[in-house]
Amino acid sequence: MPWDDLSAQRFPAFDKELDGISKQTMEDHFKLYEGYAKKTNECRKRLNDFDYAQIEGNQVFSDLRAVSVDYTFALLGFKNHETYFGHLGGAGGEPTGRFAELMEEEYKGGLANWSQAVRKATSAARGWVMVGYDLNDGSIFNYIMDSQNLWAVYNMVPVLAIDVYEHAYARDFGASADGRKQYVEAFFRNVDWEHVNRQLMQAEGARQGAAQAGLEPKREQAGAR
Amino acid sequence: MPWDDLSAQRFPAFDKELDGISKQTMEDHFKLYEGYAKKTNECRKRLNDFDYAQIEGNQVFSDLRAVSVDYTFALLGFKNHETYFGHLGGAGGEPTGRFAELMEEEYKGGLANWSQAVRKATSAARGWVMVGYDLNDGSIFNYIMDSQNLWAVYNMVPVLAIDVYEHAYARDFGASADGRKQYVEAFFRNVDWEHVNRQLMQAEGARQGAAQAGLEPKREQAGAR
Amino acid sequence: MPWDDLSAQRFPAFDKELDGISKQTMEDHFKLYEGYAKKTNECRKRLNDFDYAQIEGNQVFSDLRAVSVDYTFALLGFKNHETYFGHLGGAGGEPTGRFAELMEEEYKGGLANWSQAVRKATSAARGWVMVGYDLNDGSIFNYIMDSQNLWAVYNMVPVLAIDVYEHAYARDFGASADGRKQYVEAFFRNVDWEHVNRQLMQAEGARQGAAQAGLEPKREQAGAR
Amino acid sequence: MPWDDLSAQRFPAFDKELDGISKQTMEDHFKLYEGYAKKTNECRKRLNDFDYAQIEGNQVFSDLRAVSVDYTFALLGFKNHETYFGHLGGAGGEPTGRFAELMEEEYKGGLANWSQAVRKATSAARGWVMVGYDLNDGSIFNYIMDSQNLWAVYNMVPVLAIDVYEHAYARDFGASADGRKQYVEAFFRNVDWEHVNRQLMQAEGARQGAAQAGLEPKREQAGAR
Repeated sequence: MPWDDLSAQRFPAFDKELDGISKQTMEDHFKLYEGYAKKTNECRKRLNDFDYAQIEGNQVFSDLRAVSVDYTFALLGFKNHETYFGHLGGAGGEPTGRFAELMEEEYKGGLANWSQAVRKATSAARGWVMVGYDLNDGSIFNYIMDSQNLWAVYNMVPVLAIDVYEHAYARDFGASADGRKQYVEAFFRNVDWEHVNRQLMQAEGARQGAAQAGLEPKREQAGAR
Repeated sequence: MPWDDLSAQRFPAFDKELDGISKQTMEDHFKLYEGYAKKTNECRKRLNDFDYAQIEGNQVFSDLRAVSVDYTFALLGFKNHETYFGHLGGAGGEPTGRFAELMEEEYKGGLANWSQAVRKATSAARGWVMVGYDLNDGSIFNYIMDSQNLWAVYNMVPVLAIDVYEHAYARDFGASADGRKQYVEAFFRNVDWEHVNRQLMQAEGARQGAAQAGLEPKREQAGAR
Repeated sequence: MPWDDLSAQRFPAFDKELDGISKQTMEDHFKLYEGYAKKTNECRKRLNDFDYAQIEGNQVFSDLRAVSVDYTFALLGFKNHETYFGHLGGAGGEPTGRFAELMEEEYKGGLANWSQAVRKATSAARGWVMVGYDLNDGSIFNYIMDSQNLWAVYNMVPVLAIDVYEHAYARDFGASADGRKQYVEAFFRNVDWEHVNRQLMQAEGARQGAAQAGLEPKREQAGAR
Repeated sequence: MPWDDLSAQRFPAFDKELDGISKQTMEDHFKLYEGYAKKTNECRKRLNDFDYAQIEGNQVFSDLRAVSVDYTFALLGFKNHETYFGHLGGAGGEPTGRFAELMEEEYKGGLANWSQAVRKATSAARGWVMVGYDLNDGSIFNYIMDSQNLWAVYNMVPVLAIDVYEHAYARDFGASADGRKQYVEAFFRNVDWEHVNRQLMQAEGARQGAAQAGLEPKREQAGAR
């Protein structure tokens, strides 16, 4: 069980002038991120303090299930924003490096098609779009998330995270479908593709590390996938 | 985007006599797992065939969001069952090896406390309990999932997966809270701890692989976590 | 706030021989329904005992939100099963009376089309199919629910409730897609259409009662709908 | 099945100067409400056009389930906002009339306690707080909803609806926990309690209408509740 306390940090993006995303939005956004850290820590403490010999486990309602479920909302609220703030503050423009290369390989229609697909995904999500690297097969995919924790998947490492909660754009662009589209373009003007590529390298490193960790699971040995 | 077709495979557990889990339950269960593979492939095909220049992205309702969201239900339905069937068919008993060691380190009260905690979690979940390894901090946690895809998290590699959907136990033990408890004990009599340990080694290998993949993300450099 | 304690009752269906649905399934099912009553009462007590001047309201995690959210799971778990058990134990066959009449009017293709549509809905839901009467416009609709409380709507009175959780059919028919289909046919062999029609009369009575209750809301006055 | 097309209307609140809620927020909000009407109509058309003899019903993914599920998001998105806009534009202040009377009876601690409880609920919800009247027992309750359709219940008529999506307050007060609290106070300065009371009268009328509609369901006859 994770014991360490998380704390929000001031990513470099908070000290920069972003193109189209205001300081006020960033400061309000920071408060939400601080709230996720605080609640993650509170949930961890509760989960740590339970007396598991005595506590009720009940799938309709029980403190154990309540804390366990919303712990994932808090934790992903924290992790989502770490990824988001981490790759803001860059020069934007077209994807570069390994990310561009992988998209060109992976997507039918290549990078240009991905570029359209991810924008459509940002209009179709209610919370986040996560471009995630799959540790099982090395594929990359635009995941739609409807809240901090709805429709995440495991064995996945996010390399690009676009917050489309209304808090990310309502003040600067208006809480409408058009406002969101303008915000997404602003996001892409400020993204740091080098940071994205570092995350992708880590994801690929994770997959290689797993492969070298001794015996593969039976399925992969059989080459059946 | 992942193009490859998934297919259900006959894990060794299907050829064994399990203690308390009937052949009939396993065969019905296999059909569900086949269904997830089939639907994952169908969703991938749809997502691949969309014309992203033309398709509507809409967060209230759109084909793109519908397929993207339930794709994760299908995909995790497949992956969950691969993990589950993969570690059935063993000799059960107490956890051994690295898994036992990590639990002893991680849990207040050690392995004995985890053993109680995971059982309470199986009563508190509506779908699955996933014992997952966190790629960020190397912690291990009993995640509660309410369906194939509700409350999954990313940057997590599952090492132990207990299906508590009613299909896993209703026929053999009755679809009641007590029936579920009896089934969970049966699960633990049949788990293959060596397989669990192989998965944990892969998870730890993934974390090491990520760490060696060059520059760490800025946050980790700052040692702020 | 609702203070009264709910209690499970032995509906007449529990004393009958149902066609295809076993006594054992019904008894296991009764235990789940009892559990929902018990948890509804517990949640009500907690909600009643909170000190609202002091309690934390927090949307990430707070006891208030946890109890409030899963209260609806418990309450609808109770109400869903009251409707379900209430209309079991009948002679089945084709819909009759006002229900048949309304379906004939409401559905393109009439009752025969509804009969196909509701069966497809039972294969497409993860928890329940609710045939519900809308208090706003008097329409009737096959609602899909994915759990006891996912995708319910308000201003709706259910007149027919088909439980498609696996607990309703796994023991008797197997937890597969085909098993579910066989169960749904069994459900229709045991439904009491007179009971369904009583519920529909109450729903229509509710709509008329609302209309007679004095001033209409502004929108309806304007006839804009 | 409901065939009629819904259309957004300009409620009186759009022509008034609200205290603290800006015209710009109201206009952006109107666009969202229009979007829900449009998508409700689109989903109804799709559901009407399906060939139910041929269409696949599948609980993992199928067009039928996708449209049916997100139809409730669209429909409640529409209905929620009709209630919300409908009771904006009033003089605010303390609750009056039947609503005040019922709260005084229903809540331990009376209206003053409800007033604190509903404010805490607005901080604990991720989407809406619905003060709803229960058609079964005449109770009134602060329901928490996490999106347009998450955790709605049936047999419930809403009498007061507070939108706490970020679109309701981010522009005027900032998308923070404090901003939300300021907005909720602004909401209460603008609520029309007469409108709320009309809705409550309709809800009570609906309950009476159901009671007069002939035979009660068996349970209520037995007085077992």
